[in-house]
Amino acid sequence: MNILIVHAHYEPQSFNTALKDCAVTTLTQAGHDVRVSDLHAMNWNPVATAADFNLRSNPDYCVYALEQRKGFESGTLAEDIRLEIEKVEWCDMLILNFPIFWFSAPAILKGWIDRVFASGRFYGGKRFYDNGGMQGKRAMATVTLGGQQHMFGPDAIHGEMDTMLRPILRGALAYCGFAVLPPFVAYHVPYVSHEEREKILQDYQTHLQGLDRMEPLTFPCMCDFDEKLNPRIPVDA
Amino acid sequence: MNILIVHAHYEPQSFNTALKDCAVTTLTQAGHDVRVSDLHAMNWNPVATAADFNLRSNPDYCVYALEQRKGFESGTLAEDIRLEIEKVEWCDMLILNFPIFWFSAPAILKGWIDRVFASGRFYGGKRFYDNGGMQGKRAMATVTLGGQQHMFGPDAIHGEMDTMLRPILRGALAYCGFAVLPPFVAYHVPYVSHEEREKILQDYQTHLQGLDRMEPLTFPCMCDFDEKLNPRIPVDA
Repeated sequence: MNILIVHAHYEPQSFNTALKDCAVTTLTQAGHDVRVSDLHAMNWNPVATAADFNLRSNPDYCVYALEQRKGFESGTLAEDIRLEIEKVEWCDMLILNFPIFWFSAPAILKGWIDRVFASGRFYGGKRFYDNGGMQGKRAMATVTLGGQQHMFGPDAIHGEMDTMLRPILRGALAYCGFAVLPPFVAYHVPYVSHEEREKILQDYQTHLQGLDRMEPLTFPCMCDFDEKLNPRIPVDA
Repeated sequence: MNILIVHAHYEPQSFNTALKDCAVTTLTQAGHDVRVSDLHAMNWNPVATAADFNLRSNPDYCVYALEQRKGFESGTLAEDIRLEIEKVEWCDMLILNFPIFWFSAPAILKGWIDRVFASGRFYGGKRFYDNGGMQGKRAMATVTLGGQQHMFGPDAIHGEMDTMLRPILRGALAYCGFAVLPPFVAYHVPYVSHEEREKILQDYQTHLQGLDRMEPLTFPCMCDFDEKLNPRIPVDA
């Protein structure tokens, strides 16, 4: 497989960066081709603005998704965006590697999604979820956080991890048609011992070695919704 | 009340910006003091890095939250962050005004939260949720999106709006102790007629005029969790 890792940690010595490095090594050794977009090293600009369009469809009023669509078609998106879209086109699998900031991705990664997941290619019209533009590709999130595992769950203080990550797993990745694999979550990272960190890295290696056999998470199927995206009423209801 | 509106739309003519302007007018007429952080106009930097700390606690290895805590205590956070913290300190109520990008906030606003909600003041140790640093202040999200209302709900194609907004409402605002009011959601914005937009603006005015009587949403209470943040077992269980 061609695998793109998008990495979003500001500290090169962080455990989050060690997970990225572990993925590069493990996946390369398994025979995959791996590329990395290290957003901090690239000084990635995460702010979606009208400046992202070298040729404006409407120079007087910017609707970002509309300009994305026209810009993608005409090849006039900003160069940094075009380069990232090419990497996603190249890959069979996308791994988002980031620390949880406020129950979600750091802004630098959120802005990679905002700017790169262009209307007209990643989604558009009725092309989303299982009809999304990235059908056939897989995606996964690898995250680090300070909280402990018992703090996440139906009755836990922070609620369920899968709803916490829903905007990313469902709202961005599944929405664009990626088959989304279960996330790898490293808990309590700032507080664990060296030995526990080694154990997490081993668990991650095992997780990565099992990618081929992993079942994607379940998300909405367009076939369950009608033309206006209302849920279809079952025939026997 | 002192009210801070944080506005995050790239297009000054957008309907999202009209909602911000509507809030400024309506709340000022009601006798409140209103300030606006217009993030695009301010050219706000949303990327949290070691450069945010004029004096490093550990110059060799950056743990962002730890440096935030030290930087807040010593008054050495980057000036743009300090100015925003002062505005939040000043306000009795915070309104986040933004378009939904990928089920969540645009990166420029996510990075306002990442950099401004400093450990040591907004939260820290066991000071979160109803013990959070912003106790006594209220907050609300005002959002615009392209989807229609029937696309959000328990069986709807995109699922429930409140879980969609959970990282912001619960993970950021409630976590820091804000009493979070129900969000104002403007659906289908790019596609509605001028008359429908006028109706939404009227509804928003009514919503804003009712702020004083509005019940906050319910979030975890620290009293329901023990020292290790496990759920307490009820006495009669």
